[in-house]
Amino acid sequence: MLSNIRIVLVQTFHPGNIGQAARAMKTMGLSDLVLVNPRCFPDEEATRLAAGATDVLDNARVVEHISQAVGDCVQVVGASARLRSLPLPHFDDPEPMASELIEHAQNAPVALVFGRERFGLTNDEIRHCTHQVSIPANPDYGVLNLAQAVQILAYEVRRAWRHHQASPATPQTPPSLPTRDQMAHFETHLHEALVTSGFLTQPHARTEDHLRALFARAQPSRKELSILRGVLSTLEKAGSDPRSSS
Amino acid sequence: MLSNIRIVLVQTFHPGNIGQAARAMKTMGLSDLVLVNPRCFPDEEATRLAAGATDVLDNARVVEHISQAVGDCVQVVGASARLRSLPLPHFDDPEPMASELIEHAQNAPVALVFGRERFGLTNDEIRHCTHQVSIPANPDYGVLNLAQAVQILAYEVRRAWRHHQASPATPQTPPSLPTRDQMAHFETHLHEALVTSGFLTQPHARTEDHLRALFARAQPSRKELSILRGVLSTLEKAGSDPRSSS
Repeated sequence: MLSNIRIVLVQTFHPGNIGQAARAMKTMGLSDLVLVNPRCFPDEEATRLAAGATDVLDNARVVEHISQAVGDCVQVVGASARLRSLPLPHFDDPEPMASELIEHAQNAPVALVFGRERFGLTNDEIRHCTHQVSIPANPDYGVLNLAQAVQILAYEVRRAWRHHQASPATPQTPPSLPTRDQMAHFETHLHEALVTSGFLTQPHARTEDHLRALFARAQPSRKELSILRGVLSTLEKAGSDPRSSS
Repeated sequence: MLSNIRIVLVQTFHPGNIGQAARAMKTMGLSDLVLVNPRCFPDEEATRLAAGATDVLDNARVVEHISQAVGDCVQVVGASARLRSLPLPHFDDPEPMASELIEHAQNAPVALVFGRERFGLTNDEIRHCTHQVSIPANPDYGVLNLAQAVQILAYEVRRAWRHHQASPATPQTPPSLPTRDQMAHFETHLHEALVTSGFLTQPHARTEDHLRALFARAQPSRKELSILRGVLSTLEKAGSDPRSSS
């Protein structure tokens, strides 16, 4: 189950942070690292600071865009000190976030995404997330070093995993969730249907953000997504029906 | 209350770890740092890695021996990946440790003590602690970087503090606990009484360790300590009583 927990670092500036993050991961039993467009990697500084976790670095994937890092994941949590104005479900406490992540990680990969040291994640990158999480900190000085944030969230994930192992509850098969790639296809279809049907007569990013966040919160199973796609197809016909008023 | 939480770093080898520890502290609202015989301090590397927490470094005390770092504390928790064979009460989970630390921190300083990067704390240093704590980690690779351990425990302390603030329970005045200096005087008196009375006919460190740990676990209030000192004084007379058999 821990092997399904992926750590994604986006455009990390200091290779030393990548090394320390790898070490932080390994101490908590995590091993799946993906780097999105890192400034400097591989790098001696990363290797040096990884200490006994150079295997995590050796096995790390390097990709160019976040969609390639999380496409196969059923839950993607963006870690950000700075709340964006996007209506994404937000955990203001890592503990319940970790419990949910461990639940979803039973059968499919999930990801924790960390942004740039100075600038965090862009709005476009947050659109690839299903949730946001922040680490409660000193309001006067609350931005943790990147590798420290990885350490804390990895620690919470391991804690949730330990509790899950110890829990006497009958394990229920969690509903099969769609991957980010499947949700991306749905969102594209949604956009086309909203336009074709005449609901959106001009581009309105805010409305679409809200709808995307709504469907993400609903956590549709694959079956439900299939039903929704059918509804969208019907919606599209509304735009081409000669009887519909403009 | 958070200002009563002291972080003590013993003989830190890498000044960079001191800097990162200072930053970790400040993000969680801690500010009291004491360095016991650091190898290199002050140091540019510490300042650089402290980022916006150089005030924590500037206010740090530097002492030569651990007794000078924790003498005024009513609880002292040694953080160690390696369990020592000393019978000290041990938290294998930081969460209950942090709750108890916050309780004791209401009226007096308490300390979290971290050892050397490679060698941890010596047995003598652990004797200055009232408890030990370890951070649950990967059994195959469980030794965290020093500053990462500080970050995790500081995070847990802040979490316990937040829960304490939010708790609706009627605040009880905690019993007034003795400081480490007062316990050290007691332990010296205990040793003398055990010897003078004839209970210990030869030095027996293990027996004394057990007794010290027992009295530490009992968490005697200052009043109770006073009673115990009275008992010890009576015990000492047993050694000088001509009627006592040898």
